[in-house]
Amino acid sequence: MGSTLIRGGTVVNADAAVRADVLVRDGVVAALGDGAGWAADEVVEATGRLVLPGGIDVHTHLEYPIDGFTTRTADDFHSGTAAAAHGGTTTVVDFVKKEPGASLRDSYLRRRDVAAAKSFVDFGLHAIVPPRDQQEDVLDDLRLLAGEGATSWKFFMAYPGTQMVDDGQLLEGFELAAEYGVLPMVHAENGHMVERETRRLVGSGRVSESFHALAHGHDSEAEAVHRAVVLAESAGTPLYVVHVSSARAAEEIGAARAGGARVWGETCPQYLAVAYEDYAGLGERAAAYVCSPPIRERANQEGLWRALQTGALSTVATDHAGFCMEQPDDLPPQKLRSPGYFPKVPNGVPGVEDRLMVLWETGVRTGRIDMCRFVDLVATRPAKLFGLFPRKGLVAAGADADLVVWDPEADHVITAAGSHLRTDYNLYEGMRVTGRPVHVFSRGHHLVNDGALEGGPGRGAFLTRGAPHLF
Amino acid sequence: MGSTLIRGGTVVNADAAVRADVLVRDGVVAALGDGAGWAADEVVEATGRLVLPGGIDVHTHLEYPIDGFTTRTADDFHSGTAAAAHGGTTTVVDFVKKEPGASLRDSYLRRRDVAAAKSFVDFGLHAIVPPRDQQEDVLDDLRLLAGEGATSWKFFMAYPGTQMVDDGQLLEGFELAAEYGVLPMVHAENGHMVERETRRLVGSGRVSESFHALAHGHDSEAEAVHRAVVLAESAGTPLYVVHVSSARAAEEIGAARAGGARVWGETCPQYLAVAYEDYAGLGERAAAYVCSPPIRERANQEGLWRALQTGALSTVATDHAGFCMEQPDDLPPQKLRSPGYFPKVPNGVPGVEDRLMVLWETGVRTGRIDMCRFVDLVATRPAKLFGLFPRKGLVAAGADADLVVWDPEADHVITAAGSHLRTDYNLYEGMRVTGRPVHVFSRGHHLVNDGALEGGPGRGAFLTRGAPHLF
Amino acid sequence: MGSTLIRGGTVVNADAAVRADVLVRDGVVAALGDGAGWAADEVVEATGRLVLPGGIDVHTHLEYPIDGFTTRTADDFHSGTAAAAHGGTTTVVDFVKKEPGASLRDSYLRRRDVAAAKSFVDFGLHAIVPPRDQQEDVLDDLRLLAGEGATSWKFFMAYPGTQMVDDGQLLEGFELAAEYGVLPMVHAENGHMVERETRRLVGSGRVSESFHALAHGHDSEAEAVHRAVVLAESAGTPLYVVHVSSARAAEEIGAARAGGARVWGETCPQYLAVAYEDYAGLGERAAAYVCSPPIRERANQEGLWRALQTGALSTVATDHAGFCMEQPDDLPPQKLRSPGYFPKVPNGVPGVEDRLMVLWETGVRTGRIDMCRFVDLVATRPAKLFGLFPRKGLVAAGADADLVVWDPEADHVITAAGSHLRTDYNLYEGMRVTGRPVHVFSRGHHLVNDGALEGGPGRGAFLTRGAPHLF
Amino acid sequence: MGSTLIRGGTVVNADAAVRADVLVRDGVVAALGDGAGWAADEVVEATGRLVLPGGIDVHTHLEYPIDGFTTRTADDFHSGTAAAAHGGTTTVVDFVKKEPGASLRDSYLRRRDVAAAKSFVDFGLHAIVPPRDQQEDVLDDLRLLAGEGATSWKFFMAYPGTQMVDDGQLLEGFELAAEYGVLPMVHAENGHMVERETRRLVGSGRVSESFHALAHGHDSEAEAVHRAVVLAESAGTPLYVVHVSSARAAEEIGAARAGGARVWGETCPQYLAVAYEDYAGLGERAAAYVCSPPIRERANQEGLWRALQTGALSTVATDHAGFCMEQPDDLPPQKLRSPGYFPKVPNGVPGVEDRLMVLWETGVRTGRIDMCRFVDLVATRPAKLFGLFPRKGLVAAGADADLVVWDPEADHVITAAGSHLRTDYNLYEGMRVTGRPVHVFSRGHHLVNDGALEGGPGRGAFLTRGAPHLF
Ligand SMILES: [Zn+2]
Ligand SMILES: [Zn+2]
Ligand SMILES: [Zn+2]
Ligand SMILES: [Zn+2]
Ligand SMILES: [Zn+2]
Ligand SMILES: [Zn+2]
Ligand SMILES: [Zn+2]
Ligand SMILES: [Zn+2]
Repeated sequence: MGSTLIRGGTVVNADAAVRADVLVRDGVVAALGDGAGWAADEVVEATGRLVLPGGIDVHTHLEYPIDGFTTRTADDFHSGTAAAAHGGTTTVVDFVKKEPGASLRDSYLRRRDVAAAKSFVDFGLHAIVPPRDQQEDVLDDLRLLAGEGATSWKFFMAYPGTQMVDDGQLLEGFELAAEYGVLPMVHAENGHMVERETRRLVGSGRVSESFHALAHGHDSEAEAVHRAVVLAESAGTPLYVVHVSSARAAEEIGAARAGGARVWGETCPQYLAVAYEDYAGLGERAAAYVCSPPIRERANQEGLWRALQTGALSTVATDHAGFCMEQPDDLPPQKLRSPGYFPKVPNGVPGVEDRLMVLWETGVRTGRIDMCRFVDLVATRPAKLFGLFPRKGLVAAGADADLVVWDPEADHVITAAGSHLRTDYNLYEGMRVTGRPVHVFSRGHHLVNDGALEGGPGRGAFLTRGAPHLF
Repeated sequence: MGSTLIRGGTVVNADAAVRADVLVRDGVVAALGDGAGWAADEVVEATGRLVLPGGIDVHTHLEYPIDGFTTRTADDFHSGTAAAAHGGTTTVVDFVKKEPGASLRDSYLRRRDVAAAKSFVDFGLHAIVPPRDQQEDVLDDLRLLAGEGATSWKFFMAYPGTQMVDDGQLLEGFELAAEYGVLPMVHAENGHMVERETRRLVGSGRVSESFHALAHGHDSEAEAVHRAVVLAESAGTPLYVVHVSSARAAEEIGAARAGGARVWGETCPQYLAVAYEDYAGLGERAAAYVCSPPIRERANQEGLWRALQTGALSTVATDHAGFCMEQPDDLPPQKLRSPGYFPKVPNGVPGVEDRLMVLWETGVRTGRIDMCRFVDLVATRPAKLFGLFPRKGLVAAGADADLVVWDPEADHVITAAGSHLRTDYNLYEGMRVTGRPVHVFSRGHHLVNDGALEGGPGRGAFLTRGAPHLF
Repeated sequence: MGSTLIRGGTVVNADAAVRADVLVRDGVVAALGDGAGWAADEVVEATGRLVLPGGIDVHTHLEYPIDGFTTRTADDFHSGTAAAAHGGTTTVVDFVKKEPGASLRDSYLRRRDVAAAKSFVDFGLHAIVPPRDQQEDVLDDLRLLAGEGATSWKFFMAYPGTQMVDDGQLLEGFELAAEYGVLPMVHAENGHMVERETRRLVGSGRVSESFHALAHGHDSEAEAVHRAVVLAESAGTPLYVVHVSSARAAEEIGAARAGGARVWGETCPQYLAVAYEDYAGLGERAAAYVCSPPIRERANQEGLWRALQTGALSTVATDHAGFCMEQPDDLPPQKLRSPGYFPKVPNGVPGVEDRLMVLWETGVRTGRIDMCRFVDLVATRPAKLFGLFPRKGLVAAGADADLVVWDPEADHVITAAGSHLRTDYNLYEGMRVTGRPVHVFSRGHHLVNDGALEGGPGRGAFLTRGAPHLF
Repeated sequence: MGSTLIRGGTVVNADAAVRADVLVRDGVVAALGDGAGWAADEVVEATGRLVLPGGIDVHTHLEYPIDGFTTRTADDFHSGTAAAAHGGTTTVVDFVKKEPGASLRDSYLRRRDVAAAKSFVDFGLHAIVPPRDQQEDVLDDLRLLAGEGATSWKFFMAYPGTQMVDDGQLLEGFELAAEYGVLPMVHAENGHMVERETRRLVGSGRVSESFHALAHGHDSEAEAVHRAVVLAESAGTPLYVVHVSSARAAEEIGAARAGGARVWGETCPQYLAVAYEDYAGLGERAAAYVCSPPIRERANQEGLWRALQTGALSTVATDHAGFCMEQPDDLPPQKLRSPGYFPKVPNGVPGVEDRLMVLWETGVRTGRIDMCRFVDLVATRPAKLFGLFPRKGLVAAGADADLVVWDPEADHVITAAGSHLRTDYNLYEGMRVTGRPVHVFSRGHHLVNDGALEGGPGRGAFLTRGAPHLF
């Protein structure tokens, strides 16, 4: 591999933004600084632009089976990671779920290979811990996976009967995580509360799509966060809470952190930039917005922003799980498989391509966060927590040359038509943003060049992740 | 000025530690990275060592008059900054107090020149806001000072009758600070509570040196922090609380931050590594430990460490204000001017030379913080808050080459005898530490070379500081 | 004095409501129970009615001088206590303020005699502690007053320059109160914050009457409460916070109580049943609503109710301080002495006659509180805290026969025209209430008989109050 | 039934203590007051003594089957209620648990009859809600029981596999309780956490009796309280937390109450007056102290007292569940059935006879609470919450004449030998108390007369309890 000099830009890391040329050699950053005397095979002019570490989306669901394997998300690792790259994301960490008739570990190895064959960007896999009754010896598998790069395990506190694990299994899993230096992740909603509320809504005929949001109360999310923190403290493990949607849940995290607990929270662009009010009146079209936890009231957004400012929340990922609104022939039933009945809408929304632009527009340009914090949220902290640091997540000597040249002046309108995903709608349709990626490098490879994807599927590498870096 | 190559070390910044050579040219960092092909006038071998940004001590009192100008601290800018340099600190921010018969601004200009003639390291000055009755037009002076580099103003909530300002003046000053982009600092103790408690102790004959600590309750400190935050929020200004000594006061800051307040707290090594129990039984020798707020019970330390971990506290400075235990001929009355009577002991303890080593030993080596957080506490965050960033406080292209080559394996025993201060005792006497500076650079100048000070007084420059960087 | 039998009613105390006849003899309750065999000089039929302990209003300002004795409230002890009696209040505790040229104690003795000559109901006097510079030996007077029935002392944290005492004097006074078993009371607003905000409003021309509310922020009230609690804890005394108007201030009390602090809060009907929105648009007529702390936004009311429910607030008094809107010839300048300029509006609103009816209507009839809690708020707890229990504040054997026969079915419309006060307007004008007093007894004397006042001024007795009962 | 005059005493209710004679007629209090002219069949002299409402112990387990009906508590309704009477308790509310092969309702009716035949004092029964898999149609039974006097239902959050119900069943039960005006009660410990910790202890051989306490962490109790409150709020029901043992759990209740939640907590004498340190070193004899939640560290006690003072805790019951240390022939296996192995020790301690004396000694005589609060904790609040008010729980006209004449000067030493229980040891063995009951009346019947029990088993009546009184 040759060398590249990115010249004249401002390098933005989580702690500082400084004027520096960046020399890339053999896939890593060789030097930063005054590059007047530096030679390279390729020179990219970045004057007036920013050089960011490539985005890391630690919460995606590509070609992901749901609802007892009756359907799956629309994008596979091909279209999904192509879109990610276009959006400035050079690493995704997706999930593996135990397949019926296979062990968790076998499922992991198989999915790793499937993804490796299609992916444009580097990727890792979190392991989802199935309820004990689905695989008796799952702890043995988890032990193996910890050494095979799955240094983060996800537990569901929701979806009783299918994915939910009880507090006993949470404790057991958390203790194993503590022993193996693995970071446990929780989907924090009290599944019983959601189920009960769903039953109440269905019982009274309130079943159209947007009632989904009412079935998933703030209290059920905040309660689950509180409980997960107690269990994690008891087991002596740090904890990561995925997709925090409720400001009250974020407050629970903030309070726990203030008390010394090692807990981190993630939120997603859909919770920051979209609101319940946007879809409450849409009837069946509201299915496009259905995800869990739900997109909440506009008044809730301010609390999430405050949590991002105070550090109660630490990362912004997408929980990307796109389904189509129009049913394609080659996919199992998508969003409208059972119109007018919220309990049957596949949960999930797309976002992997839009994450950086939406957060820049609503966060940096409004002054809520600065660009260093932006980098921290989308790249540095995710890399640290998920065992990729300091190989990824920063622009520094020796780090992978996963780089984004960002034009803070470029205007762009987000649309489904202009996206690179299979999903056929976009939550942010019509949003005007100023600031977007113009060049994207993956381990030194010039993956996106002024909007054009260069390089083929399969060049993305599987990441054998190490221990979380918790400071 | 020539060039220097620091080769083979690990560069530690607040967000990451990476293997990188550092090229220094013309007093700034020219490049970081693989320096195989880089040439320089001087090469410093740093294999197995760390390269840190120079320490920034934002709370010192050198040749500083107290108690109505009846005495002053023992170290001047000559000995004080020499000691700072030996300890790895390349910037100090000291204070200026209005002199009798002079305006605050005149005092500021004079002190700036005095310090510039003696200082080994770069320095700045915070302006202390006198009570209104000492200078009627002090607001006019403050406005001018904001443009002359004093972008931080200190207010006393203690010492009624001499330095304390009432809530009205705090509000007025805070509003002006908000208007001029200046960071207000408070000494947060409720002066009336301290005075009342002092009276009670004196009234009952409890006057020996260590009773000083009892006169300064946790409650008086926590109350003042709470009030200062309310007033700052009302005035629309961020706030910096100096020398937080009580874990309860730190909790007030943590709670305020969790609620979205822009407030930062500083603590000092003496509160982390020394305890009331260390001097309670020493009789007159306890004078060596008298400072305000006081060095508190050992049980209090853990709360401060937790606050450093959770972010309730953001910086570690020294409040260096050394006095001698033996009276030298050429200095006004020092620690024992009125033995056996705590209200007359000059307040203050030394520490500017020991700060980095003590925090490394008690914080990094115990695992309470990692070395990135160490750098953040002693250099990066101070630089940000006090208008020196990104010129200082990090190792990055373009930044001042204020650098410390730190040997994490070097053993050292802290003693007064081995120190470079005039103060004749050391709070940490006999403490064994592993980890110390071996080379110190100030704007590229090799100021300390394997323990030897190179360069003369007066090479330190006055820093015209800019606006605080609050993210 | 003869005997009275109140027959067939339901006796309501703070802890229970029970069916019982009440036998009154020699001014006290002789027996409760099945009075089938009891004889009495007078029989009052109370079937379907309630028998309550007489209301105790511990916060009134009758014929009360303000603003440096330049004016006074409109009602004197004659009209004020007549109105109180009509409204079911049989005890008032008013204030004495040091008069110019007289000591606090001389002022107290004089005011006691003036009131005794005019009052229809029993009364006591709280002593207001003047700033030290108004009377040097005020502590000596306070010591004497504690033994002469003034077992509660009020301190102002507002009104700098006239009534405000600083934290040093608060501590000194609180310590003396602790020593003498006296309950200190505070007007909790940070006077400096109010003054500063007033200056800001005046400076920008926002001076019409309703701007008064903006000058008195929630934060200034909450801060003062927090500080008063810290000082009281430090001095080892319980504390009573008068006229809590802000839900945030009430939360401070609730938090302190939850932490074990012995602090009680009072609110007033005007804060529960009237809102800023009611007068914000009235121009000069808004003067009728001006009091300190101010009547706040409607959204604030719910927090006060919750505080009454959770026990963060413990009493409902009136802070009755009525001024006329039309200037009478025989009174000094009233509400409109300086129209259009809020800083000059005399502070205070009437309410002593309406308190019970308004609280019954808005509290009991809405289900927010039950009738036992009603009695607790308006009679029992005030009696306990202010040294009148168990002589007053309950219907029990041996207690003073201060009794109200309340008709919970009687309808009434509150108007100024129908009131017995001199104040010429009513905050609750037009409010329909269901529930009102029909008979009122004061120490067995049938003071109000179906709406008619029986008995003359001067029969009310001065109450030499004892120590507070704090459980 | 005849009449009784209790003459010369001080009647103590929750809100006041007043000098009054008490006339009892036909089992109820006919009158209170100056009884100079009152005649009665029996006159009890009470000068210098107190007249209290009879104690109400809302948490007892008499002849109560545990551990899958493999054993039962030692005292039956005969010995248990005789002992209660001796101790001044005139009402117990015990529990009914679904028997194997019978429905909950059938079990209830049977137990009611068994108890009615033996009981000396009035009694009620709470219904324990079995896990759904033990009785499918349990909701139907609960509906019936609400109308048959079981207006309180208990749910276990502990003991997975036998008694624990999951959050779904809690929600369902809470909603039904809300609908039927029933007060749900929870045993608040996270059963999974306890089970996991037990497994860990057993796994490492820490199995002797006192390790029981370590298996039941403060965190598991506090977590369960927090969750129960969330679920109750979601279901719209008030909530009662039985046997709060951890100060941290009490703080959760206090915080919830401060936020407006309708939740009440109960604690027990064993948590206030006994400590872990008392039995940690006793080996097998520690079995005598084993109950769940456990008797905790001495340092924990102060937090419980503070909670009783601030209102975070509202009642003191016993959770009386006595087992013998020596195995009697006629009882199934008692405390030492499996010595040296804590998981097999029957859980429970005795206390129904000692409750009032122990709380008086440790609470009233130490000044932590006054005698009115004492009455509130042991009688008034229990009566209110469990649908017995104002029939029981106070001394007032019309109320049941359940009365205790208490001699506050009488000395007594608590011993097992001097007790009236079958349980063969006493937790408070050797405790000297000053203050004890000398006469006890149950609905006017002179049940205990100077230490002698008068009247036979079976005179106690089953109480068909009404709705809780929540103010
Ligand atoms: Zn999820
Ligand atoms: Zn997901
Ligand atoms: Zn200071
Ligand atoms: Zn200082
Ligand atoms: Zn006032
Ligand atoms: Zn007032
Ligand atoms: Zn239990
Ligand atoms: Zn129990």
